[in-house]
Amino acid sequence: MGNFIDWRNHAGSQPEKVHKATLWQGQHVMLGLNCLEPTQVQAVHAHAGADKFYFVLEGEGRFTIATEEREAKAGMVVVAPAGIPHGVINTGRERLSLLVAIAPGIK
Amino acid sequence: MGNFIDWRNHAGSQPEKVHKATLWQGQHVMLGLNCLEPTQVQAVHAHAGADKFYFVLEGEGRFTIATEEREAKAGMVVVAPAGIPHGVINTGRERLSLLVAIAPGIK
Repeated sequence: MGNFIDWRNHAGSQPEKVHKATLWQGQHVMLGLNCLEPTQVQAVHAHAGADKFYFVLEGEGRFTIATEEREAKAGMVVVAPAGIPHGVINTGRERLSLLVAIAPGIK
Repeated sequence: MGNFIDWRNHAGSQPEKVHKATLWQGQHVMLGLNCLEPTQVQAVHAHAGADKFYFVLEGEGRFTIATEEREAKAGMVVVAPAGIPHGVINTGRERLSLLVAIAPGIK
């Protein structure tokens, strides 16, 4: 994988589940792309021992972080500290695309 | 620090050096913001044992990663694997704002 990455080249959709692509896998961090079509859901889950954050590239969604639920649009960072349950639903009319980093870089 | 972060609230500039802000510090990753005014430079440097990536939020710059030099604009990801020399200069006419993640989260 190269060091200069255009996430738009990795965007996509699947009718029955979230589209996921790995953009870069380092020793200490995994960088990926998640694309959710309207109404698609990433169920609440947690990564033991790994910090995660989302950066909203386009669209909008409703994020759950522990017991907090909030809408976030393009340009927002949403953080899920290690072990904290998190998930998201696309509440908008357009695709919700998320840059996702997980450290250490479990898949 | 909260789990929902708008980087725009942390943007800024300094006449003599790159503006830096920490957006979030986790156990395994540090998430920051770097803002470079036109012609400002982040000198080439390396982080031993830590992966780093930039996401270009606004503006454009010329990045050095090891021996590669390339322009990157808003929307691009630029990766500096652990130990690899990297730096950037704002070659545009507007502010260059970069989301920066370093894992593990050294400062």
